[in-house]
Amino acid sequence: MSPTTASSSSSHEQSAARTSSGDGGRSAVTVLGLGPMGRALAGAFLDAGIRTTVWNRTPGKDQELVARGATSAASPEEAVAAAELTVVCVVDYDAVDAVLRREAVTDALKGRTVVNLTADTPARARDAADWADRHGIRYLDGAIMTPTPTIGTPDAVFLHSGPYELYERQLPVLKALGGTHTHLGAEIGRAAAHDIALLDIFWTAAAGYAHALAMARAEGIAARELAPFAKGIATILPPLFEEWAGDMDDGTFSGRLNPLTSGASSMAHIVHTSEEHGIDAGVMRAVEGWARRTVGLGHGTDGFIRVAEVLGRH
Amino acid sequence: MSPTTASSSSSHEQSAARTSSGDGGRSAVTVLGLGPMGRALAGAFLDAGIRTTVWNRTPGKDQELVARGATSAASPEEAVAAAELTVVCVVDYDAVDAVLRREAVTDALKGRTVVNLTADTPARARDAADWADRHGIRYLDGAIMTPTPTIGTPDAVFLHSGPYELYERQLPVLKALGGTHTHLGAEIGRAAAHDIALLDIFWTAAAGYAHALAMARAEGIAARELAPFAKGIATILPPLFEEWAGDMDDGTFSGRLNPLTSGASSMAHIVHTSEEHGIDAGVMRAVEGWARRTVGLGHGTDGFIRVAEVLGRH
Repeated sequence: MSPTTASSSSSHEQSAARTSSGDGGRSAVTVLGLGPMGRALAGAFLDAGIRTTVWNRTPGKDQELVARGATSAASPEEAVAAAELTVVCVVDYDAVDAVLRREAVTDALKGRTVVNLTADTPARARDAADWADRHGIRYLDGAIMTPTPTIGTPDAVFLHSGPYELYERQLPVLKALGGTHTHLGAEIGRAAAHDIALLDIFWTAAAGYAHALAMARAEGIAARELAPFAKGIATILPPLFEEWAGDMDDGTFSGRLNPLTSGASSMAHIVHTSEEHGIDAGVMRAVEGWARRTVGLGHGTDGFIRVAEVLGRH
Repeated sequence: MSPTTASSSSSHEQSAARTSSGDGGRSAVTVLGLGPMGRALAGAFLDAGIRTTVWNRTPGKDQELVARGATSAASPEEAVAAAELTVVCVVDYDAVDAVLRREAVTDALKGRTVVNLTADTPARARDAADWADRHGIRYLDGAIMTPTPTIGTPDAVFLHSGPYELYERQLPVLKALGGTHTHLGAEIGRAAAHDIALLDIFWTAAAGYAHALAMARAEGIAARELAPFAKGIATILPPLFEEWAGDMDDGTFSGRLNPLTSGASSMAHIVHTSEEHGIDAGVMRAVEGWARRTVGLGHGTDGFIRVAEVLGRH
């Protein structure tokens, strides 16, 4: 994932991480979770000269980081006690809870700050913030929108939510992770909500391309033959995304150029071609279902994005 | 739809339509079907100085074109008899058949050429070519990849398939439609197959965006707030499409940066968040199903695009 949106207001603070934090000594951070992303985060902190303590549930993941100067903690409680800021990046919030929600760790975190960069749902982020609040732990929720190799480079994109003053205080250390950091608001679920919505677009588009490649192969078209045209389709999406966002916010859904009825007929052709080749058309069947439901509600002359408004009705 | 791929080999012939065709007089063309796209096509022919005869099943759609110099035919057989080339653009091939597959029309078309720009499936294109062949009618199948306002401008994109020499002979007249024309091969279904695959990508991505907008709204995020990040996601697709095309053709599916198991977990978060808001997650449920089926077949450490290979297995 790599939204290219930059938070220009903060990107000039890029080098701040190399300066001391307010505690009078070198900055310090603890990283819990040493999967590929956790290791990249810890490596970026080390590269920025930040005193870094690491811990992972399964041992043996810290060797390269220790060789680069990290301190390996014997337990999560020992790890979180080593720094004012703990960054958590594990597989999901079940894994976060398994590490943090034990008495020894919760006690050690009291008065300290957790920045949770684990991906999960907004509801889980809110639940984690409630837990932190009940235990006197400061809590920020974040989402990493770019892959592992971008960490520590200008290409990394981080989204954050939670109390702004807390974000501002931790930003000098977080800046060691490179890229752009955007604070999306105090409501703790906003980073996860953006993450989920953007992953939704990404994986759905990826699935459309996968299905198109399967159909192309069945029609004797190589993937490399289709790719230049597919890239052309991707190129027209950004201006349409902008136009449709205006339609959604303003409640205007002009189908002048491409009414839903015509889109639905196009979708039916895709489903038929797919199934004639014995290729599962489940995704497009579901898309066509949304379009036909929206037509059935009397919006056949509207543009496709009326579907979004209908999906959200209760 | 607007793939930006250009057929540079022929785009310098743009002005050829204004010259005479081989029949010793002005070029002539017949347009059957005067919906918004058919009217745009006829208008572009008129603008290029081509003698244009038009016909539509429902009367009254030809007034503006007649005012601009078109000849209105009283019947489709009269229309097709007026020119060597007939361009058909109606809602689907059922509508094409209803017009062309009547004895008077079929007889009038014998020895003439039909360029069918109607959108439908590759199977229908093949069936139409068989019918044309049985009746001594020359037949090309095409797809219009760009919306109505692009017709007659450099932004129009046309894909064609069928006998190359026939395509080459009609190209001077077709060039009056503007944009780029690409001949994809002699196999008559190739234009429709490309069209279907590209529409598949387009509509699936559009559905992902619609669903993301619905979820964003439920999370209190305005569409215009999400749009800049969504555009960032669209921007990363073209290089991924290229990389994945190589994976598909070469049978390599490296999941080093983003294994399918991790994608599937991301998809589950999207489904849960959607359904917690009472928003239909049918499309993402189907995408997740493809991912989990592919993981179940032993490809969990592969990249997502392995899904395309599994979808195409029989």
